[in-house]
Amino acid sequence: MMEAVQSPKEVERELVVMKFGGTSVAGAEELKRAAKRIVAAREEGRSVVAVLSARGSTTDELEAMAREVAGRPDPREMDMLLSTGERISCALCAMAIVELGHRAISLTGSQAGIVTDSSHTKARIIDVRADRIRQALEEDSIVLVAGFQGVSTESNDVTTLGRGGSDTTAVALAAALDADVCEIYTDVEGVFSADPRIVADARKLPVVSYEEMLEMAASGAKVLQLRSVEYARNNGVPIHCRSSFSDGAGTLVIAEQETMERPLVTAVTHSSNEARVTLTGVRDEPGVAGEIFGALAEANVNVDVIIQNEPVSHGGGADLSFTVESGDVTDAVEAIESLDAAEGIETDEKIGKVSIVGAGMRSHPGVAAKVFEVLGESKINIEMISTSPIKISCVIASDRVPDAVKALHNAFDLGSGAVFEENPMSSEGHRPRVTPDPEQ
Amino acid sequence: MMEAVQSPKEVERELVVMKFGGTSVAGAEELKRAAKRIVAAREEGRSVVAVLSARGSTTDELEAMAREVAGRPDPREMDMLLSTGERISCALCAMAIVELGHRAISLTGSQAGIVTDSSHTKARIIDVRADRIRQALEEDSIVLVAGFQGVSTESNDVTTLGRGGSDTTAVALAAALDADVCEIYTDVEGVFSADPRIVADARKLPVVSYEEMLEMAASGAKVLQLRSVEYARNNGVPIHCRSSFSDGAGTLVIAEQETMERPLVTAVTHSSNEARVTLTGVRDEPGVAGEIFGALAEANVNVDVIIQNEPVSHGGGADLSFTVESGDVTDAVEAIESLDAAEGIETDEKIGKVSIVGAGMRSHPGVAAKVFEVLGESKINIEMISTSPIKISCVIASDRVPDAVKALHNAFDLGSGAVFEENPMSSEGHRPRVTPDPEQ
Repeated sequence: MMEAVQSPKEVERELVVMKFGGTSVAGAEELKRAAKRIVAAREEGRSVVAVLSARGSTTDELEAMAREVAGRPDPREMDMLLSTGERISCALCAMAIVELGHRAISLTGSQAGIVTDSSHTKARIIDVRADRIRQALEEDSIVLVAGFQGVSTESNDVTTLGRGGSDTTAVALAAALDADVCEIYTDVEGVFSADPRIVADARKLPVVSYEEMLEMAASGAKVLQLRSVEYARNNGVPIHCRSSFSDGAGTLVIAEQETMERPLVTAVTHSSNEARVTLTGVRDEPGVAGEIFGALAEANVNVDVIIQNEPVSHGGGADLSFTVESGDVTDAVEAIESLDAAEGIETDEKIGKVSIVGAGMRSHPGVAAKVFEVLGESKINIEMISTSPIKISCVIASDRVPDAVKALHNAFDLGSGAVFEENPMSSEGHRPRVTPDPEQ
Repeated sequence: MMEAVQSPKEVERELVVMKFGGTSVAGAEELKRAAKRIVAAREEGRSVVAVLSARGSTTDELEAMAREVAGRPDPREMDMLLSTGERISCALCAMAIVELGHRAISLTGSQAGIVTDSSHTKARIIDVRADRIRQALEEDSIVLVAGFQGVSTESNDVTTLGRGGSDTTAVALAAALDADVCEIYTDVEGVFSADPRIVADARKLPVVSYEEMLEMAASGAKVLQLRSVEYARNNGVPIHCRSSFSDGAGTLVIAEQETMERPLVTAVTHSSNEARVTLTGVRDEPGVAGEIFGALAEANVNVDVIIQNEPVSHGGGADLSFTVESGDVTDAVEAIESLDAAEGIETDEKIGKVSIVGAGMRSHPGVAAKVFEVLGESKINIEMISTSPIKISCVIASDRVPDAVKALHNAFDLGSGAVFEENPMSSEGHRPRVTPDPEQ
């Protein structure tokens, strides 16, 4: 009978999904700090759902335990094991919030309605049935959700989403609950124009577009997990990436807007743990490349840059090179050896990659030339090149990566002395305002 | 179409529920040892369901974490937190079993169908819906079940059964699955005639009845949890209590049988962490005792021995004494102070208890007299006495407990030199044979 009458409070209350990473819940102090931040948001009148990762090195410790008892731990059991870490964080944080005088309830991925396929250790979310969260929010509870995990529809077993899956949990919940923003708290202050450990005057970016963030995550920026950005873009979830150790605004990741000024280059990203695999004398038949990359996909190897030279009828077949993460080299080689597709396989594990990303590159064709010129001036040899409309990546020797990052950051004027300072979000009513001022 | 035909193997296969305590799964080595023992039972042709506790001190560590973030941790969240320990044990053990070449699956209490009421941190099992276990056994899997936990029907939340609850999980599953035996593995070899740390020639008992075991558990024997013995008695589940570190037979806990020789006294038990609460000038009205013990029950204080002296119309009202566990004294005093039922409350925390237990006492009325005589000869003052048909307990000063145990054990001839050596189970076909020979 009451249903027809909605209280004005319920209609207006904002909803924020906050996600805290492992370092943000590492110990009792960090957990209490996270609890206070959550409570502060609640006391500002917002409804809060918080997604937590496992504490500090818990996941690594659990994996080490597994390897002590089994050479190849069973994936289903691995998920049962690893999923405990986030539950511990959530239960502890819920206790800390109750201690601060608020209602709180912790939910496992399964209880939170994160439904996945049954690919253990790397499950994909196929549905979010957030009824229990909604009910708890209506009862005025703060809801803590164990990140990184779900439940398979098929077998009703615990699944995990793979490393960094908690970001995806948070974004998926924000999408399902139609949250106003998904705040990702980490131990860094936001997304920077380059890794501040390499470039001293790297600048915190007030805003980047989903596309830029995707390219940056794919090319080495570790702040946000690629999958979560993809999910956010597909569902229009604004992400606010910020530090759990300070109150300053971080970086807003949102859809590219007409009003948004497009800088030529937004950031320089890099990765040092890459490896190149070169196949020589690849069998010269249609479908060979499909066979090769099919086998790699089946072996769960992510291939990054691919180059094929001397393409056809050159006698001994073509040469094919591609890069993978260093940790995947053995799997990659094994997968290809089983195919009889090439005469030889060579690997080079001293490979790195430097990339520049920027939405403005779409309309400025001269950027690639400048990148090559800058690296050339620094006597850095470019071994492979890969581009997208908003990204240029160069594969180089891994020991030259820091020099390349510095040179490019400098050449494109990305430092904190740079002119670009604006807030494209200022016209958006309830969204968090993002300004470069850390006091907000 | 195949359903009508049952294979003879399925009909005949024995089912054993094995329960491993915290020390038996403490580290990788212990877990592998437990896995081997489970696999050995499977390879002997039995179906195996194994219930595991949390590893070593995990539960204590989790409780300590909770106290770091909250003064009074929320009970629901405490259960969410504590239930992770057993899941870790089970997942690791399942991996170890898979590594040994057998099928294995770990189940949470909820997945195993342990349905409880919603009294968080001390839930009671109200149903066991073991369909998923049966299905897994039919698929020829070894089933690992997280002990100590269940799921509440009401809220679908994780509950825990209280300390030692894994024994109860094991017995409840054995009852529901109609197992042939429930084997409880611990770090001791069985049930002894007295604590071997106090009495050097304490004897491992080949068999004790449920009733004796209940009295022993209630009066200080720590091998089996009281509740699990009660559950076993009510459901006729034979318990075999044995060491996970040796292959010898332990102690069988079964229903008292006609053929069973009843020793006069089976064991001496003791406890040192008791406290006495004395109420002076208790209000002289009908119903006062009910008020007092009602308030104690509400405060969750277990009262053991009760004595009321100078019962009625003595001017200042009666005196009432009772004993509780040391840890409950504060709660007990607080509960009574709120009542205005007595003039004064005194407490004595230097109190212990020594008990003798034996089914044969029923038909031998002289035992109590001998107990008092023995303690008198040792100059041990008896402060309170409590008896049941098969038990005599004396409350004494806690520093005299070891002397009392030794004196009684000696006086009733319970040592390993004693004559009583028999196997009342020898006529039982498939039940484990229990003999005093550790080589079995």
